[in-house]
Amino acid sequence: MADLNFADRLLDAVAEKKTPLIVGLDPVYEQLPAAITGHRELNDENDVEAAVDAVLEFCTRVIKVVAPHVAGVKINAAFFESYYWDGAEAYMNIVQEAAARGLIVIGDVKRGDVGNTAKQYAAATLADPALASLDDLVAPDAVTVNPYLGLDGVQPFIDVAKDEGKGVFVLVRTSNASAADVQEFKNAAGVPLYMHVGKLVEKWGAELVGAKGYSAIGAVVGATNAEQLAELRRALPSTLFLIPGLGAQGATPADVVKGFKSDGTGAIVNASRSLIFAYNDDKYKDLGPESWEKAIENAVVETKQALAQALGQ
Amino acid sequence: MADLNFADRLLDAVAEKKTPLIVGLDPVYEQLPAAITGHRELNDENDVEAAVDAVLEFCTRVIKVVAPHVAGVKINAAFFESYYWDGAEAYMNIVQEAAARGLIVIGDVKRGDVGNTAKQYAAATLADPALASLDDLVAPDAVTVNPYLGLDGVQPFIDVAKDEGKGVFVLVRTSNASAADVQEFKNAAGVPLYMHVGKLVEKWGAELVGAKGYSAIGAVVGATNAEQLAELRRALPSTLFLIPGLGAQGATPADVVKGFKSDGTGAIVNASRSLIFAYNDDKYKDLGPESWEKAIENAVVETKQALAQALGQ
Repeated sequence: MADLNFADRLLDAVAEKKTPLIVGLDPVYEQLPAAITGHRELNDENDVEAAVDAVLEFCTRVIKVVAPHVAGVKINAAFFESYYWDGAEAYMNIVQEAAARGLIVIGDVKRGDVGNTAKQYAAATLADPALASLDDLVAPDAVTVNPYLGLDGVQPFIDVAKDEGKGVFVLVRTSNASAADVQEFKNAAGVPLYMHVGKLVEKWGAELVGAKGYSAIGAVVGATNAEQLAELRRALPSTLFLIPGLGAQGATPADVVKGFKSDGTGAIVNASRSLIFAYNDDKYKDLGPESWEKAIENAVVETKQALAQALGQ
Repeated sequence: MADLNFADRLLDAVAEKKTPLIVGLDPVYEQLPAAITGHRELNDENDVEAAVDAVLEFCTRVIKVVAPHVAGVKINAAFFESYYWDGAEAYMNIVQEAAARGLIVIGDVKRGDVGNTAKQYAAATLADPALASLDDLVAPDAVTVNPYLGLDGVQPFIDVAKDEGKGVFVLVRTSNASAADVQEFKNAAGVPLYMHVGKLVEKWGAELVGAKGYSAIGAVVGATNAEQLAELRRALPSTLFLIPGLGAQGATPADVVKGFKSDGTGAIVNASRSLIFAYNDDKYKDLGPESWEKAIENAVVETKQALAQALGQ
């Protein structure tokens, strides 16, 4: 159980590593380096087990490579759930690996349900395990949550955040192409739904604002529309943004800068595929297939530099 | 792989069992009958295992009791995820039990994410397992999905529904108290978000309308606001509704009737706690603690009758 407010802990880690960059772990077996998959025999009888072993080794080694450079990792639960219960166990193992290396761990689970059920999800995904036989395990420091059900669906996560010094990132404006289908639905005053939800999040988080002026209840805001990002940044002064979509989803360092205040605070930035699969990028091919970890490290360092430059740091 | 359109299969099952009622499995260890929990020793070393064993036995016996009476079950993933990977395995075991008894199985998972990730979730929750070592397992016939990310987040589920004869229920108007925070956000013409989303769902489902006039892409519509339910029923003629909230959440048979057309089709109705924990209800106390299955059966039969009466059947 952490004593400090989650936002304060996260901002301390960002200051220590001198970057708002975090690394997204979205492992796909088919894209793992041959150095990991090559010595495993994947056959019809053991395919789940062998694939999960490979994913576990890969993520563990990626965490070791990136830990000196970034404040945290975002672990995408979907890529583990594809492997059913073995995947669920691997997900918790990766949370332990990242926590043991001192990283802030964000579980990207995007849960949301009615109150009674949301309470179960908050217990399952954000609270440290209450069951005695699992009490040596820690849960992530924060999770992502869907706002469609209103406060009922988010409150159980806020309660855990309050009780255990954890955090929540509520989806506000996502980075995908069709987000506008729903999130840009506008009221009579021209206010889009994402702004309405953003203001709810700012309100829901008011009681968990830490010493550094940001709440433990943050928002997921994509950088694919830089103008909307800037508008949300102005409207939600106490809300930390988790900005996905840097790299593979098309956002550039110049875009994500709109999510920051002029003092350089206000957001963390996630990049997933462009970092963890960097060894597949022509740019790093010269390093050779055995140097896949070096390719990842180079990509992380270069992305940090590009972000710092864009932020004028 | 089912040949028939999901909506046709579901409506056949409803006709066969002569009721739109389905049973929600939201098992909570503390509320299980003593006949299940009493002979299990729950201690600090084995608490997850013993609790999951109890939940598995309970759900398996509930499925056996209700299978002759109802068309399907809705399994709430949150109540299994609380038990981590053992819970994930138990969830799939319960899916197999229900499918083996010929029930339509709805996985209440409420996933939703950007396209690349939603594809993983659709594979993990709705598609039958592609991995060879799991190919004797079936996934649920349908799952619930969150619409906040727009079509990107739903399309991978629609694709699986199309390829494998499965179904999707997209959250439109949920039954919880704070749903209005977001779902009643209105545009300049006074149209609330839930209606906007409902019309998107009707459109998204257009290509999967079956022989009986309903699409395999349905909607979750709560009955706690009967007027909104009636309005949605009129506006979305090809969309099957999954109506939660009967019983413990406060909706009555008279309320849920608004989700049906005058021919008695158009919706299925879920009740969870009021059925599966019926033995804790004073009404059935006289049956005695060993007759917990009889209490559940009586509650199911009585709820079917109340629904039939309200529907004038």
